[in-house]
Amino acid sequence: MPHPNDPKLKSFIAVDPTSDFPIQNLPYGVFSAPGAAPRVGVAIGDFVLDLALLESEGLLKANEPGVFAQSSINAFMALGPKVWSQTRARISELLRDDNPTLRDNANLRARALLPRKDVQLHMPFTVAGYTDFYSSKEHATNVGVMFRGKDNALQPNWLHMPIGYNGRASTVVVSGTPIVRPQGQLKPPSADAPTFGPCKRLDFELEMGVVVGGASQMGEMLTEAQAEAMIFGFVLLNDWSARDIQQWEYVPLGPFQAKAFGTSISPWVVTREALEPFRVKGPAQDPQPLPYLRQLGANNYELTLDVGLRTAGMNAPANISQTNFKYMYWSSVQQLVHHASSGCAMNVGDLLGSGTISGPEKDQRGSLLEISWNGAEPLELPGGDRRTFLEDGDSLVMRGWCQGAGYRVGFGEVEGTIRAAE
Amino acid sequence: MPHPNDPKLKSFIAVDPTSDFPIQNLPYGVFSAPGAAPRVGVAIGDFVLDLALLESEGLLKANEPGVFAQSSINAFMALGPKVWSQTRARISELLRDDNPTLRDNANLRARALLPRKDVQLHMPFTVAGYTDFYSSKEHATNVGVMFRGKDNALQPNWLHMPIGYNGRASTVVVSGTPIVRPQGQLKPPSADAPTFGPCKRLDFELEMGVVVGGASQMGEMLTEAQAEAMIFGFVLLNDWSARDIQQWEYVPLGPFQAKAFGTSISPWVVTREALEPFRVKGPAQDPQPLPYLRQLGANNYELTLDVGLRTAGMNAPANISQTNFKYMYWSSVQQLVHHASSGCAMNVGDLLGSGTISGPEKDQRGSLLEISWNGAEPLELPGGDRRTFLEDGDSLVMRGWCQGAGYRVGFGEVEGTIRAAE
Repeated sequence: MPHPNDPKLKSFIAVDPTSDFPIQNLPYGVFSAPGAAPRVGVAIGDFVLDLALLESEGLLKANEPGVFAQSSINAFMALGPKVWSQTRARISELLRDDNPTLRDNANLRARALLPRKDVQLHMPFTVAGYTDFYSSKEHATNVGVMFRGKDNALQPNWLHMPIGYNGRASTVVVSGTPIVRPQGQLKPPSADAPTFGPCKRLDFELEMGVVVGGASQMGEMLTEAQAEAMIFGFVLLNDWSARDIQQWEYVPLGPFQAKAFGTSISPWVVTREALEPFRVKGPAQDPQPLPYLRQLGANNYELTLDVGLRTAGMNAPANISQTNFKYMYWSSVQQLVHHASSGCAMNVGDLLGSGTISGPEKDQRGSLLEISWNGAEPLELPGGDRRTFLEDGDSLVMRGWCQGAGYRVGFGEVEGTIRAAE
Repeated sequence: MPHPNDPKLKSFIAVDPTSDFPIQNLPYGVFSAPGAAPRVGVAIGDFVLDLALLESEGLLKANEPGVFAQSSINAFMALGPKVWSQTRARISELLRDDNPTLRDNANLRARALLPRKDVQLHMPFTVAGYTDFYSSKEHATNVGVMFRGKDNALQPNWLHMPIGYNGRASTVVVSGTPIVRPQGQLKPPSADAPTFGPCKRLDFELEMGVVVGGASQMGEMLTEAQAEAMIFGFVLLNDWSARDIQQWEYVPLGPFQAKAFGTSISPWVVTREALEPFRVKGPAQDPQPLPYLRQLGANNYELTLDVGLRTAGMNAPANISQTNFKYMYWSSVQQLVHHASSGCAMNVGDLLGSGTISGPEKDQRGSLLEISWNGAEPLELPGGDRRTFLEDGDSLVMRGWCQGAGYRVGFGEVEGTIRAAE
């Protein structure tokens, strides 16, 4: 049987070469048809394949019955990497152009394959814990230069470990969910005392999110291989940030309310397996990491990321940044190993944000803080709008994909529109 | 019907005046008898009252059937404050010395009231999110003086908001769970580069934990009254801390692995209602908090807290600190209001640590960091052991109670013993 990543595979469903969802991808999500309960599906071309239906028709098994007739993929993820691979191989087989099972059964096809435009997409998994890292050297350097000057840009610990903090799982939402402008304490350096009001420096952060599909025990560390095997897949992630709230609150315990009001993710979880063909080596790490963090293989992904901004006065988003996941200094595996290094238990459904992904060039910056250089260089948008930070009505869209020969393994998009503070 | 807090109430079960669990308390927990599944119970004297059994016998109703036959109190908490009060009143009624229902039914009593020593206590609730605050002015000042000197002890934001950070919910464990000494990156100021190894400055932090029993929507703030009504109860909390890991990792995003390896709580959740008679006014707040944080009433609790340390060579714990919850500068209600102020959604089962509770006196310090003044003043224990930080085999026990006239409303204890790093 051919491997599901084989570039030569074709589905009986027509898939455009620029589509994010060819047969080589098969990302998991949760969807509902009008009037029906949410269940697990896979994106293929412009359709969603209903896995719960395939299971009830006896065409798909995943060790534990009923894992697809649920409103999250957590139960499926908990079955482990062997089942992930077997299930993906079976789905690939059912969608291949040389397999008649679905292809030649018009009635079954009509029930199992729903046009994506007709269904609603939900949060694909229940977030157990949300952690956000800070692992792009370019981003950390940009922020450091702005606030501490060029000579002290990187903190002394940054090159020795993936710096991260615990975020708030309760406000991780799926693409399309509006984001209410947060209120909070604001104290510009010139003011004597803080005031309370709507954030004036609302920002996005372009990130990827790792979806953890396995668990570790409290008191246990993880090896590189164990951590790798626990990664189920990836999503696009927008870590909305209130720069002014953060500036006043973050010493000494880190960001709290500045990051707690919303984090948006893409509805499709692209599996680690589907990204395998796009592995590349990350940046050289100097100094060499401590042994528990050392990783020799190609630990990054060649994954194009694209940010669009549409103000209320624009018809379509304008591209404001294009960068690549491959620039990340600390890999997702290193982040997960470090996360468990104190004996911290990891759970199925944990979400690890990569940290803002900026590249070496000016047009590869992953936040407005960097793009507008802390407000000093406003962004000029087609149609004449200017932005330093986000205004009410602004819509931010991120896309991401790996380019194969004649096909893309993509993530769709994560979109969020800013609503006025309530 | 008398109020369940009435000091004159007596149970047909004999309760010693120094017991933590008189009829005026009735804290909720989750227990299992040998070979039976965990279920919800209430502590009374030396017994646990099996609420699932009472429900199945038709003696107790809580709107939704089956909420007590579960391994957490989350479903019960989700029923809201009116049901909490009604349920507590009914349990009080059933345990009163003038009520024959249980008192005179030896068979039922034997099944419903189990000696506490014969059952196992479990985590009382599923932790949705864990947040840790830093709200004792004495603690923040002690730490500030040690690391920044007397003139810059409190950070500029500290008097304006309850400073807090998101902790790790996956390692919140019930009293009695061993704590494995964490490993992590250590870099003493004199070293050129960090090394990886077992923490050398392992500490406890004496805290109270608020158990949130209600939910708020993303994008919504909470008023003082709404926040108050969402607080189901309180537990004792030990926020184990690796001071050396924290020192190296915490700039600029706050504590991460230094606090991720374990947080211990007491098995009994004492309800907010049971603590009502012990309300006192907290310290004067100057400057006056911003309007959203302003609170006029008696917002603290007169609640004695006691810390004992037993080394492997000692037979019983020695008292090393005795302080009071009433010293907290920011109240639990203010913490919850601030937590939701950005629009952060709060959930049933959220746990908010108060922050280390130190008092104004030297013998009222809530951590070894303060007690040993960062290692400079070792603690002398009966029997000759000395401690600056915790050693393998050390057992740390916290207790807490409110003293009424002839009775105590208490929390039992939270205990944890340190195991060697693995």
